[in-house]
Amino acid sequence: MSQYNHVALIGLGLLASSISLAMRRAGMQAQITGTARSQTTRDTALKIGLVDAVFDSAAEAVKGADLVILCAPVGAMGMIAEEIGPYLAKGATITDVGSVKRAVVEAVQPHMPDNVHFIPSHPMAGTEKSGPEAGFAALFDNRWCLMTPLPENDHTAVQRLSGFWTALGANVEMMEVDHHDLVASVISHAPHLIAYTMVGVADGMNRVAKTEVVNYSAAGFRDFTRIAASDPTMWRDVFLNNRDATLEVLGRFTEELFALQRAIRTGDGDFLFDYFTRTRDIRRSIIDAGQDTDAPDFGRIKEEN
Amino acid sequence: MSQYNHVALIGLGLLASSISLAMRRAGMQAQITGTARSQTTRDTALKIGLVDAVFDSAAEAVKGADLVILCAPVGAMGMIAEEIGPYLAKGATITDVGSVKRAVVEAVQPHMPDNVHFIPSHPMAGTEKSGPEAGFAALFDNRWCLMTPLPENDHTAVQRLSGFWTALGANVEMMEVDHHDLVASVISHAPHLIAYTMVGVADGMNRVAKTEVVNYSAAGFRDFTRIAASDPTMWRDVFLNNRDATLEVLGRFTEELFALQRAIRTGDGDFLFDYFTRTRDIRRSIIDAGQDTDAPDFGRIKEEN
Repeated sequence: MSQYNHVALIGLGLLASSISLAMRRAGMQAQITGTARSQTTRDTALKIGLVDAVFDSAAEAVKGADLVILCAPVGAMGMIAEEIGPYLAKGATITDVGSVKRAVVEAVQPHMPDNVHFIPSHPMAGTEKSGPEAGFAALFDNRWCLMTPLPENDHTAVQRLSGFWTALGANVEMMEVDHHDLVASVISHAPHLIAYTMVGVADGMNRVAKTEVVNYSAAGFRDFTRIAASDPTMWRDVFLNNRDATLEVLGRFTEELFALQRAIRTGDGDFLFDYFTRTRDIRRSIIDAGQDTDAPDFGRIKEEN
Repeated sequence: MSQYNHVALIGLGLLASSISLAMRRAGMQAQITGTARSQTTRDTALKIGLVDAVFDSAAEAVKGADLVILCAPVGAMGMIAEEIGPYLAKGATITDVGSVKRAVVEAVQPHMPDNVHFIPSHPMAGTEKSGPEAGFAALFDNRWCLMTPLPENDHTAVQRLSGFWTALGANVEMMEVDHHDLVASVISHAPHLIAYTMVGVADGMNRVAKTEVVNYSAAGFRDFTRIAASDPTMWRDVFLNNRDATLEVLGRFTEELFALQRAIRTGDGDFLFDYFTRTRDIRRSIIDAGQDTDAPDFGRIKEEN
């Protein structure tokens, strides 16, 4: 009973389409139903076979499903939960892929009937692309899926969901809800905001032409533009819904940045050298952990030739 | 007379080794001599054939060269110029690969005899790797080399050097010295400092374990660690020698970051959404200009499977 028979995907973007493709790759036979806000997305998802059936509403899509995955922006989760609550099958598991967990728990839980299992998840995988055609089966391979089970969750239901993510290629880790939001703010939310900011600064410099920024971007800047090309709605919702942790990390960031600026201003080369030496070590750890390629420039150079 | 007969490389790291390999790829027959501070680097460069002859001192390495390329950290350029000045061949061209131009001009020019051509360059190409074994022939392909000729420079000598960079694969653009330093601070220096800062913050968060930072880094953070793995000596010198432009851009950065933090704090979703939509456009321009791959996640995902 480790697999599900009917999986409903609410929202049909990068994450949902990758889940569908990874399920098929894993040989899962489950029926997949789905819905999305836009008619175009629903049509595309059906046409390219991401779902067996598509519905105009989330309420219809979840009927009979034993696993419902909310793949919508964090800010839409509450509304969807309210809509589907009365239509959920008894014993169904409901999870989500939101990048924030406390806000999702608060928005979703009140709408869940007593006879279902609401178990939050955050598969930490993605790209800067969005939409139903952006998905691919390997998205979760060797990436981590953080699950933040709630005190009332049934152990068997949690294990079953964990097995589902593992079958899709992910490593699963259990984590407390608020600790998740702090960790996510450090390794994902603050880096995204900083990338958006740097790109905004370069775009707004009157004394540097846009063609200069674009043509010479390989000197470092272009790395930031990838992250800053991520879906605006998704990220607006992330920041609005993980406000305190994000602001805390950004406060730390500003403090460190000021210390480095001060070292530049006062000509403290030793401070800079020591700082840059420490940060070099962490990349080695990430490569050793199999979380990034060791190829120079992310392996881009080969590709460009 | 567009090619050089004897090229001397002072410093034998990533840039010098890539120049040597790109020269050979272009079919240039020039003799290549070189030197580096460390005996190990000199031995390696000779062993892997980056140079035809290696010397213990820059003064010896430049003798008879009609092109001398200073490939050392910006902070070492003045000392090297002082050392080689008396040994330069009459009519030789001296250039450099420094990421900062005003400071290099001020450090090098006073030591140049009247009968040579000192023409600053900045090939904007590199990776996070360093050392003589990090080079590869394609490093400059479709990247930009900014040249900042000085008022006294001979037109023919400038054109000849421009032809050299072009033969190595680069696009060449002429730029005024101080404007170069501002452009470089926006597209390279500030992004590097910000990446170093973000990595430093994550490394210093007591409430988030280092294993958490490392394992979950694919959610955005790992992009910053590549840049923050760049050579500490080189980057210390860049910041100390492009202080004013870097601090100006960082000032703009802090201002923008505060505006975004304020929008998060006050819940101004429209401000965030509009900002994130604008920054998305610039990535498209960079891809259209052939300055980055359009493959999701820099094409890393394929490689990991």
